[in-house]
This record gives sequence, C-alpha cells and structure tokens, in this order.
Amino acid sequence: MAQTVADRRDVDFVLHEQLAVENLSKHELFADFSKKTVDLVISEARNLAIKEMMPVLKAGDEEGCTFESGKVSVPESFHRVYELFKEGEWIAMCDDPQWGGQGMPSTVSLAAKNFFHGANFPFMLAILLGHGAGKLVEKFGTDKQKELFLKKMYTGEWGGTMLLTEPEAGSDVGALTTTAVKNDDGTYSITGNKIFISSGEQDLTKNIIHPVLARIEGAPAGTAGISLFLVPKIWVNDDGSFGEPNDIACTGIEEKMGIHGSPTCSMTLGSKGQCRGTLLGEANKGMRAMFVMMNEARLDVGMQALGCASASYLNALNYARERVQGRHLRAGGKDAPGVPIIQHPDVRRMLLGMKTCTEGCRSLLFYIGLCEDMIHISNDADEKARYQGLIDVLIPIAKGYVTDRAFEVCSQGVQIYGGYGYTKEYPQEQYLRDCKITHIYEGTNSIQAMDLLGRKLGLNKGRAFGDLMAEIRKTTETAKGIPALAELAGETEAAVAKLEETARHIGLMAASDRMMTAFAHAYALMEVTGDAVMAWMLLWRASIAAQKLEKGAKKKDTPFYEGQMAGARFFIRTVLPVSLGKMDVISGGDSIAADISDDAFGGK
Amino acid sequence: MAQTVADRRDVDFVLHEQLAVENLSKHELFADFSKKTVDLVISEARNLAIKEMMPVLKAGDEEGCTFESGKVSVPESFHRVYELFKEGEWIAMCDDPQWGGQGMPSTVSLAAKNFFHGANFPFMLAILLGHGAGKLVEKFGTDKQKELFLKKMYTGEWGGTMLLTEPEAGSDVGALTTTAVKNDDGTYSITGNKIFISSGEQDLTKNIIHPVLARIEGAPAGTAGISLFLVPKIWVNDDGSFGEPNDIACTGIEEKMGIHGSPTCSMTLGSKGQCRGTLLGEANKGMRAMFVMMNEARLDVGMQALGCASASYLNALNYARERVQGRHLRAGGKDAPGVPIIQHPDVRRMLLGMKTCTEGCRSLLFYIGLCEDMIHISNDADEKARYQGLIDVLIPIAKGYVTDRAFEVCSQGVQIYGGYGYTKEYPQEQYLRDCKITHIYEGTNSIQAMDLLGRKLGLNKGRAFGDLMAEIRKTTETAKGIPALAELAGETEAAVAKLEETARHIGLMAASDRMMTAFAHAYALMEVTGDAVMAWMLLWRASIAAQKLEKGAKKKDTPFYEGQMAGARFFIRTVLPVSLGKMDVISGGDSIAADISDDAFGGK
Repeated sequence: MAQTVADRRDVDFVLHEQLAVENLSKHELFADFSKKTVDLVISEARNLAIKEMMPVLKAGDEEGCTFESGKVSVPESFHRVYELFKEGEWIAMCDDPQWGGQGMPSTVSLAAKNFFHGANFPFMLAILLGHGAGKLVEKFGTDKQKELFLKKMYTGEWGGTMLLTEPEAGSDVGALTTTAVKNDDGTYSITGNKIFISSGEQDLTKNIIHPVLARIEGAPAGTAGISLFLVPKIWVNDDGSFGEPNDIACTGIEEKMGIHGSPTCSMTLGSKGQCRGTLLGEANKGMRAMFVMMNEARLDVGMQALGCASASYLNALNYARERVQGRHLRAGGKDAPGVPIIQHPDVRRMLLGMKTCTEGCRSLLFYIGLCEDMIHISNDADEKARYQGLIDVLIPIAKGYVTDRAFEVCSQGVQIYGGYGYTKEYPQEQYLRDCKITHIYEGTNSIQAMDLLGRKLGLNKGRAFGDLMAEIRKTTETAKGIPALAELAGETEAAVAKLEETARHIGLMAASDRMMTAFAHAYALMEVTGDAVMAWMLLWRASIAAQKLEKGAKKKDTPFYEGQMAGARFFIRTVLPVSLGKMDVISGGDSIAADISDDAFGGK
Repeated sequence: MAQTVADRRDVDFVLHEQLAVENLSKHELFADFSKKTVDLVISEARNLAIKEMMPVLKAGDEEGCTFESGKVSVPESFHRVYELFKEGEWIAMCDDPQWGGQGMPSTVSLAAKNFFHGANFPFMLAILLGHGAGKLVEKFGTDKQKELFLKKMYTGEWGGTMLLTEPEAGSDVGALTTTAVKNDDGTYSITGNKIFISSGEQDLTKNIIHPVLARIEGAPAGTAGISLFLVPKIWVNDDGSFGEPNDIACTGIEEKMGIHGSPTCSMTLGSKGQCRGTLLGEANKGMRAMFVMMNEARLDVGMQALGCASASYLNALNYARERVQGRHLRAGGKDAPGVPIIQHPDVRRMLLGMKTCTEGCRSLLFYIGLCEDMIHISNDADEKARYQGLIDVLIPIAKGYVTDRAFEVCSQGVQIYGGYGYTKEYPQEQYLRDCKITHIYEGTNSIQAMDLLGRKLGLNKGRAFGDLMAEIRKTTETAKGIPALAELAGETEAAVAKLEETARHIGLMAASDRMMTAFAHAYALMEVTGDAVMAWMLLWRASIAAQKLEKGAKKKDTPFYEGQMAGARFFIRTVLPVSLGKMDVISGGDSIAADISDDAFGGK
C-alpha cells in the first residue's frame, strides 16, 4: 500500500544501514534496544501515527482550538490521541525509566517522531512542550521538585509549557519584564504577561506546569538577570495533593495561519497579586538553563518540518503516480494515451528535489540523534566534546536550513496536485501552512544564521566546524573508492574545500570592522553549509547503496538503492553548483545591505 | 504617512522616468493621456485601493464566500467595492470607449492594477474574469453578440467567467469532454461539468456571461476539436431583454488555502438538457481564442503576485522601522539601547531582497504593458512583430518567475514580523496564502517553464529571445558609460552572454534525443532568464538614478535614487552569481531526473 507519512523503508535504511543503531545496544545503557526491539518500536509508532494521528489532522485544522472565559479546548479528536500517547508511554521516549521514561536511544526516538510529526505535528506540540518542561525539572529541579512534578509530566498526566516570550521581548529574551519577588516561605510572587505560549492552557491534562522566565527584583539587566521558575496551574502541596488554583490565566488564543490544533496562548501571571512559583535552578541562571534546552527544542523544530516535508512528498508521489494528465513528451500525435504525471520531466524534477531534501534532512536529523547517543555512551571526554561540537554546529542547519527546505518541499507538494493542491480536499495546503511556523519559533531562521556565523563557526577555536568538515571528508574518501560515485565524490570534495575557504573568509570578516557586512551574508553561509551537509548525507547514503547493489541486493530492494544513487547524483549535479555560486557571493562580500541608508528602502 | 499597498514614488518612477509613458500621448490613440491625466488616474486608483479595497481584505478572507442551494454569496463588504468599480469605470480600462472602455494605455492600467491587486486581489478576480470574458466577445463575437453583451460586461453590469477546466482535464485542456450539439435555431445545447471556475456564480451582478470550451459533436479529438460558446446565466433575447434562466448551475464552491473572497465554483451545464449557448468565433477554433487571451491572463497573474509582494514588502518595511528589538550588532554591552529591527543585517538583507524583487518585477510587468501599447500605436509591421515577440518571450517570466519570487517575498514578509507574522492580526500571512494560487492557475509554473523552452526560445527562429537579449544589452551598454555602474554593467553583460550560451545549449538539447533531459532543466532556464531580466530592469533603473543624482536630484528624491543604485548592486552581486551556478547546471545537462525509474522514487 502506498505510504503517506514517512517512507518506512527509508527510515529503516537510515537507522540500520546508515547509522547502525544496533551498535548502540552493545552498550549497557541501550542494551534493551536490539534491532528487533527498535523495529518493533518503529512499527508501533508508525501504527499510532497512521491509524490514530493522521486521521484527525484535518479535523484539528478545521475545528481548531477555542477560548471561552479563560478556558481553552483543543480539538475534540485530540483527546483520544493524547490518551494513547499516555498509554503507549510515548512522551518521554529517551528519558530515565526512574521518572517514567523509556530510556530509548535518541536516534530511535527521532525515527518514531518522523512518523508522529508527519501524521500530525500540531497535536505533537503539546507532547513536546510537556516533555521539554519536564526535562527542565529533571535537569535543574531540586529532589523535591522532581518528586512532586517529574513523573507526572513525563507520563503525560500533567502538561507543561515554556513561558518565555513577551510582547516587547520576542527574539530579544533579555528584554523581558516579568518580575519575581521572594516570599517569606521561599516561594516567589510572579507578575507579568507572556505571549505565544503553546499549550499555555488546554483541556488535555488536569494540571499544567509552567516554567517561567522572570527577573528577580534587583537582578541585573539583560539576560544575566533572568531566572527560571516553576509555576503550576494548580498549586501542588508538599504531599503531592492539589492546593488552590494559581493566579495564572490564559487571556486569549491567537488566530493563526496554521497549527490550528495547537493553542497559542496569551498568559497573565499575578493579576490578583497571587501567582506563586518556586525557583528552578539557580537565581539569574535562567538563560543558561534555556540554552541547555535549546538544542533539543531546535532539533524538534527541524523534525516538525521534516514531518511536513516527508508527508507532503509521499502524498505528491502517490498522486503523481495515479493522476493521468497529458501525453508523454516523446509521444507522437495527439491521439497518444494520457500518462501519469510522474512521467513529465518537470514533475520528476520536483519529485526528485523533494525526495533528496526529505531523505537528506532525515539523515541529518537522525545523525544528530546518534551524536547525542554517542555522548551518553562514551567515556572519553574528548570524544564527548567532539560529538557535542558536531551537534552544536549542526543545530542551526537542522533548524534553519531544514525548515527552509521543508517549506519548499511543501510548496512543491501543493504544486504537483495543481488546482487540487490549493483546496482543503487534500492535506497538501495544510502541510504548507503548518510548516511555515517552523521558520519562526525557537529562534527565527535569521537567528539560526547569526548563531552559525557568530557562535558556531568559531566554537572551540573552530574545531567543531573543522570536525564537521572532517566527517564529510570521510564520506567523500569512501565514495572516491567506489567507481560509480568517484566523480560525484570529487565534486563534493571540491565544494567542501570551497566551503572551508568561504567560512574562513566570512569568519575573518565577522571579526573585523566589516562585521555588519559579514552578518548580512550569514544567511547565505547557513545555506551553503546546509547544502554541503546534504551532499554529505546523500553521498553517504549512495555509498552504502552502491556497495549493496554491487553485492547483489534483493530484487525488491534494488529500486530503493538505485533511488539513493539517483538522489546523490541529482543533488550534487543540480544543487551543489548553485551553492558554489552562493559561496562566491559570500566571498565577494558586497557591503550594500549593510551600507544602504534606511530611507533608501522607500515606502514613505 | 507610511504606504502599505504599493510605493507611489516607485510606481511613478517606472511610469514616467523609466518607461516615459507620456510619449504615448503623442499618438492620437492615447492623446488624452498626458502626464497630468496619468497622475490623476493613478491617484484615483490608489485612493480607491487604500480607502475602500484594503479595509475589506481581511473581512473577505474571514467571511469568505458561501454556497447555499445553488446560490453563492461573496463577502458582504465586496458589494460596495464592486459598485465603486462600476461607477469609476475601472473594469475596462484599456478598451474601446465605444463599448464602455476607457481607452487607457496598458502601461497605465497596470500601474492602477498594482494598487488594486496589492489592496485586495481576491476581490479583483471577479473584475478580471468579467473583463476577460468581455474581451473574448469583443475579439470573436458577432456584431449581435457584441451588441447584446459587450457593454454590459465592460461596465460591470454583468459578470463574466471562463469555463475551461474539467475534473479530468486540468493542464491538459485537449482532454475536455463537455459537448455541444447544434439546435435548429442555430444555438447549441451544451452538456458537461466544469471545475475551478472563479466567480462561476456570485451575487454581485444580475447576469453572468460564461464563455465555455466544449466539443461540437463529431469534432476532432484533442485541442483541434474545441470550440468556444457563450452561455449566459439568464438567457438574453435578441432585443436585449431577459429570457429564461439557463440550465447552468453552480453545484458547490471549493474550500481553499486562500483567496477566500473569490468563489471557486463547480458548474454543471445541461443537467436538464436545456443549457443553451451561441458559438463564439469559429467552430473548432476555441483553443486559438484561448491563446489570444492567454498573454493577458498570465500577465494579470503576475500582477496579482506583484500586488501581494509589494504590499507584503511595504508592511514589513514599516514594521521593521518601528519594531524595536535587540541591540545594534556593533553596540557595546547589554545596556545599549534597543534599535528598530531594520538595523539588523539579516533584516536589511531580507528587505533589500524584497525591495529589488518587487521593483524589478514591477518594471518588467509595466514594460510588457508598454510593449502592448507600442503594438497599438505602431504602423510598422516589423516593429509590431518585434514587440509581440518580446511579449511572448517575457510572458512565462511574468507569470512563472514573478509569482515564484513574489511568494518568497511574502514568506519573508511573514518572517520579518516574527511570531506576529504567523497570526491573523497582521495581513502578512494572508498575502502568503493568497499568493500561492498564482503558481497554479492560468497554467502552472511548470507549464510556463515548458512554454519558455518549448515554444518561446525558438519563436520566430529564435529572434524573439534574441531581441530580448539585445534589449538587455542596450541597457548594459548605457550603464557601462556611467562610472558608478560600469562594473555592475560588465557583470550583467557577462551573465547575459552566459545565458545566451546556456539557452543555445538547452535549445539544441530539447531538439535532440535528449529532449526529456532538456525539459527536466526547463524550470532552471526560466529561473536564469528571469534573473537576467531582473538584472536588466534593476540596472536600467539604476542608470536613470545615476544620471539624476549626477545632475543633482532634489533632496527629497535622493534617497529614492540611492535606493535604485543599491538595488541594482544588491541583485547583481548577490543573486546573479548564484544564477551563473544554475546556468552551469543547465549546461551540465545531467539526465538523472529523466533517467530515474518510477519505482526508485520509493514510497511503496
């Protein structure tokens, strides 16, 4: 049967053939996760995604969330799915079993998430937020806080959020004005307003635990004076019993372009002067805590975009195989029979672009998961640092680059359906609308680009970026030894060399008095680095495929491996040369975007 | 006051400084359109757009259209705007005054449309369709048909549509199955089903005149057997009085991603066997009539996209000037004051990209209007043919390239607003949703790319494309003589030379046994040709600006002209080098998109 969420064969390929996750099970920590177990987990996740989540995607979009006198209702059909998530223990897949987690390798959890997000990512936001809030408690909470909250959060009995953004402090977190005043009993009284809070209020759980960023009276200005607090919707007494409802309220939800199934709430804390919270972690170290969570949150956003892209691709592919329209380009005469549109060259070009993007991004994101897992099982500090560096440098790509490419995939996914794609009869337009948010939250893609140039390029004296280049070269070296890939490997190697030169150039520019100009090219740097990473991942995939084909793959596997060979060739021959042009732009370092006067933009 | 629809200064610049429309008034046909009159027309159009159309854009989106037992209601607030369009005689701006037209130069009408589309293009669809249907009557109708219908259509008393698409015949028009059988009285009985009919039914006008594509019994298969018919919603007797309601009915409207203000109707003709129509033009020549209308329709789609882009840009620009967030990149310490986000390098990069795209596209589209006007006033057959060739080769760019770029502008327009851009509180997300349809209708952008490679590149033995290159070279020659632009002109010239070589290469490929591969690169050809056209337009603009600045422009004009200099430099230095990479891809002519087996796409 045709697939519509994520290509199982390809997910399995990345897990087992590319990343060899069963190797992780040799380590005690992941001993339970043999290949057989992993396959079972993925099958269960896939079932849940296809049978329960996907069927309510559209209902979630159409019904949306409702707000009435402080109460928020999520789409009715989401309740059943939420219960299934709790029952199946899918919320804390990778976390400590002591607190209700499953102790799964991150790589495997990402494969499961590919199905979940592809089936219904607006639903998933409640799950992700709840888990993220729990993670903060696990990492920074006192024993008492963990005892009171953690298991209930990881098992989904209570929900969670992240109260960060304020009307005047969006991307600029340091500007926030929510205040905290210490009470005699050690709790804090919190006052302020927050916006854009996903699942800030909902009717899925009995309680909601809000991590809140606020400034303790008298704390320094900017990010150095921000602390993190835990504010439960309903107060939890020391014995775990419910106390009074807290003075935190939802004052409205946003009408949005997409992700209608996820309530985006405005929250008011302490309007009656009675909002109580407890400090989470150290005072004034709230931003540090945020940074710890940032990689996971940004990786999740990339996963959401991948979900949209992989579903949009499969839908488009199925449609292109079935929809008969027009004659074959080579057909003689107008009496020639109609053909499925997959036979039209420009449809093939679009599909191949969508396929390589989806598959390359899948490999990248799962690879980041593997790096996480390697950190957990490694005993070598250098090795841990190396993997952490790889993660740090790849995260802006996983968030900024992946979401940009995924949105393009979704746009082409509409395109392949023609007029039908623009209607709500098919899911394609929803994937496009939903996907757009991934460019914005958890740090806009502009911020990702600045992060890559400003922080990651020079991280560990440039070693992290260098390690990434070295990893890519391992693959090009292998591929050079494979006759069918030698040329493509050479082309990739040349592009990587040019990227290194480009990165060096812009890095120096950023540290000079041409800083403004350098940062005006930061986005292009993110794009060309992302292109190189895609080429790497696709060439890596093709190297495996070439070896399998040479050894004589099973007949049913042959088209899949040939598709891998085709994908690498397509990307390296049609995207990478364009990327070289973009590298020329960066090295050219034209300063006009920095230099132009504000008035010259016009519009007055 | 800040502008939000289209930049008046820039519109005036294109009309008067770049294209010198007042020269048209030297000719008898356009003698009424002095500069003063043109300015008055634009001011009136702009007022209507800003005061009446823009305020109901959101209402149109939220209220949308409703369908109830065959009747369709458009948004309530659109009725007043429609009446104003009738009163102001804005429907047939360029048409013969004999039939209620205004006899305006096309160039001027496009400037007016820039404001109309930017303010509310979903509303405009009813206007455009009504006019287009009238144009068919004017061009192909008998004297009787014109007498009965034309003036009522051009003045907006009656609406119009175009019944082309069928469920199994979308892009492949030749596959349509609606049939026509001749009656004894010379009328035809028509039977069939049509979909995606904009304004197929509405409550704005008393009657709706439907041009319908159908196949006369016994006509040849394919496009050679298609005829055009005129089917009024309410029959019109020979004396102009209303007869019986015709047997044509709307059976439903589409739920869509955007353009909610425009009803997209499914239509059934002859369900009771009583749908009557009259032949419009010659039997079996319906497709030829369609082709005559195609350029205008596709140019209009480009205009719609430009409207979205220009409004999204101006909104983003105003927001970026007002929204204070974060510190200046060069600011020392965290106590530095916040700055408007227009001061952040990546915001400037986005704004400059949006500006150059909007302005370059505006110049291109208005230029096509000027070519139309030149055809009308020229007495020289060669000159007419030359302008027609330029139009024909530019139309796929005006539709395919412009709509792609405009969508990117709208996406960045959301981006600059951050989280707010994703909410319905601001118009940005609607522009993005509305704009998406422009990729699809009037021939998908894939079809535009095929049109460029398959028909336009070789048109008049390649002379049309050659004339375009020659026009670009005129501008680069001029710019080479301007010191401030000499380098940019050289870079553009080199790109154009490379484009010519690339076009020659792919043209030969398309005529060889590598046809499938050539067409897999058709889209890239459209993109690089579009890039060259943008560079041309922006360099042309900069040449004028440089001359004005040298002569000593008025102080209030200086930033505008400097903005033109900046725009050309930005595009030529940051987009054109990427385009060169894309040309390498085309010339490389990799065949994988043609060669890959259908099964290798995966998903099964």
